[in-house]
Amino acid sequence: MRVLSGIQPSGNLHLGNYFAMIKRMIDYQESSELFCFIANYHALTSVNDPGLLRQKTLDAAMDFLALGLDPKKSYFWVQSDLSEVHELSWLLSNVTSMGLLERSHAYKDKTAKGIVATHGLFAYPVLMAADILLYGSNKVPVGKDQKQHVEIARDIATRFNYTFGETFVIPEADIEIDIATIPGIDGQKMSKSYGNAIEIFSEEKALRQRVMSIKTDSTPVDEPKPIKDNPLFEIYSLFLDETGRETLKERFETPGLRYGDIKKELFGIIWEYFAPYREKRAEYVRNEADVVDILRMGANKTREVAQEYLTKARNNVGLNYTNY
Amino acid sequence: MRVLSGIQPSGNLHLGNYFAMIKRMIDYQESSELFCFIANYHALTSVNDPGLLRQKTLDAAMDFLALGLDPKKSYFWVQSDLSEVHELSWLLSNVTSMGLLERSHAYKDKTAKGIVATHGLFAYPVLMAADILLYGSNKVPVGKDQKQHVEIARDIATRFNYTFGETFVIPEADIEIDIATIPGIDGQKMSKSYGNAIEIFSEEKALRQRVMSIKTDSTPVDEPKPIKDNPLFEIYSLFLDETGRETLKERFETPGLRYGDIKKELFGIIWEYFAPYREKRAEYVRNEADVVDILRMGANKTREVAQEYLTKARNNVGLNYTNY
Repeated sequence: MRVLSGIQPSGNLHLGNYFAMIKRMIDYQESSELFCFIANYHALTSVNDPGLLRQKTLDAAMDFLALGLDPKKSYFWVQSDLSEVHELSWLLSNVTSMGLLERSHAYKDKTAKGIVATHGLFAYPVLMAADILLYGSNKVPVGKDQKQHVEIARDIATRFNYTFGETFVIPEADIEIDIATIPGIDGQKMSKSYGNAIEIFSEEKALRQRVMSIKTDSTPVDEPKPIKDNPLFEIYSLFLDETGRETLKERFETPGLRYGDIKKELFGIIWEYFAPYREKRAEYVRNEADVVDILRMGANKTREVAQEYLTKARNNVGLNYTNY
Repeated sequence: MRVLSGIQPSGNLHLGNYFAMIKRMIDYQESSELFCFIANYHALTSVNDPGLLRQKTLDAAMDFLALGLDPKKSYFWVQSDLSEVHELSWLLSNVTSMGLLERSHAYKDKTAKGIVATHGLFAYPVLMAADILLYGSNKVPVGKDQKQHVEIARDIATRFNYTFGETFVIPEADIEIDIATIPGIDGQKMSKSYGNAIEIFSEEKALRQRVMSIKTDSTPVDEPKPIKDNPLFEIYSLFLDETGRETLKERFETPGLRYGDIKKELFGIIWEYFAPYREKRAEYVRNEADVVDILRMGANKTREVAQEYLTKARNNVGLNYTNY
C-alpha cells in the first residue's frame, strides 16, 4: 500500500505537527510504501520571500530526516525536484469542472480572511490531486481541513479514468480524528499562526518558558484538577500510553497536585523525548551537502514511479503523437 | 527580435489560417527569431479523442514544414515535448489574480456557448502566458480575439518582475487588422466551425467544388459587380498584390463579367499557388519518421532557451534550496 504525505516547509515544527502528522507518517514506513515530499511548490501560494523559502525547505528536510524518515525505506523528495507534477496537473485540469474548485472550503476560507485570491490558491487542489495521483497513492493521511482536497482528487481521478480509460488509482483520505486537534498553550488548536505552539526543536530555555506558560485554571492546590479541556493534561498525554494516561488522570484528580510541578515534569519529558532527534538534526545541519545528496537521490528514485503514471496519462489523452 | 506563434492542431488548414497567420509567421523567419509550436496541450481543452489529437498533431507538423517553416532557421516543436512550460505556469499562477482570469472574454464566450467550464479552459491564459514568457518572446502575432490573452501575459510578467525581480521580457501583441477577417464561402468570417472554409490541402475535386460554391449576389451579367462585401472578390484578392487587386476591381466594375468564370479562374490560382507546398507535404507524409526527428531536434534546441528563463524564474521565487 502506498501512503502519500506532503508537508509545506512553512515553519518550525511543533507538537501539533509532530503528533498529528509526522509521527504517524514515520510509523507508516513500517507497514507501507511511504511517499513523503516537501511541498515547496504549494508554499508559493503563500510565501513570496525566496530566501525564506530556500531556508525552510532545507530546514524541513533536516527535520524529517532527523525524526526518522528513512530515505532508503521510503520515497523522500523536494516537490520542486519533480516538476513532472505540473504536467499532470494540466492533464487533470481538463477534466476538472470549475464548480468542483469553486466549492473548495479552503479557498473560500482563505480569501474570506483577506488573502489575495490568486490563481495559484484557486488551482491548489488540482496540484494536490496531481501530487496524489502521480505516484499511485492509495492512502493520504490528512487533517480534517484537507479532507475535501482528497475528495476532489478522487473526483478528478474518477472523471479522468472514465474519460480516457483506467489510468489512476483512486486514493482515500485517512483521518485520525482523535489527534486531529492538539491544544496549544492557550487551549486553542495548536497552530503556528495562533502563536500558541510548542516547537519541538526549540532551545532549552525557550522550550521551558513555553511549557511553563501553558494556560491553567485557578483550581486551589488542595482540590482535584479537571482533565477535560485542560491543555496541560492533554499535551502531557501525548507522551503517554493508555496506562500512563490513567495514572496521570489519577494524579490530577488527587488533591495536592501543583500545576507548576507538572509543567516542570512535562518540560523534562519533552526535552528528553526529542533529545536523540535533536542530536541527529544537529548532525545534518553540519553536513548540509549530505542532505542535498539524499534529496537528489530521493527525487531520482521517485521519478521512476512518477514516469509510470505520467506516461500512461500522456498516452491516454493522446500526447504521444508518434510511435517512433 | 523573438516572435512566438502557437497553433492548435485542431483541423485542416484553410485560407483564413494561411493568410491571417501562417504566411505572416513564415515571413517572420527572414527578419526575426521565430518560435513556433504545435499547441497540443492547449488542444486538450477542447479535444478528448486521443487518436484524433495524435493525428492532428502530426498533420500540423507536416503542414508547417511543407509551407516553409525552416527548422534550422527557426525553433519549431510540439508543445508537449517541452513540459517545462507547466512548471512556469505554476510559478506564474501565484502572481495571477483571479480577477484577471475571470475577465477573460474567451472563457466567458466559450462557457456562454455551452462548452463545459473546466479548469483547463479557465487556466488557458496562464498556460499561454507561460508559452510566451518561457522563450523571452518580444512579439506575439495573434488574431483580434487573442489580443486580451497577450495583455494578460503582459500583466502577469509585469507582476512577476515586480514581485521577484527582473525575470521576463514583456511581450507585445502584433495584430494585422486588415487581414484579421477573411471571409468564408458564405461571406462570414472563414472558420472551420462555420463550415465555410476553403482548405488549402484539399483534393482537387473538393477544392473546385468549394470555390464554385462561393456565395455571389444576383447582379445581372451586364451590370458592374460590387466589390464591397463580395467574398469572391475578397478571397481572390488574397492572391494579388496592389496592382493585381486594382485590375481585378476594374474587371468587376466592367459589365459582362460572369461570376462563374471568375470562380474557375480562382480555383486555378489557388490550386497552382499551393502546388509546391502540396508536393512537399506528400513527401513528409511518406517520411513520417523524418518529421518526428525534426520535431525532436526542435524541442531540444528550444529547451536550451527555455532553461534560461525557467532557471531564472525558479531561482527568483526560491525553489533553488541549495548551492550544492
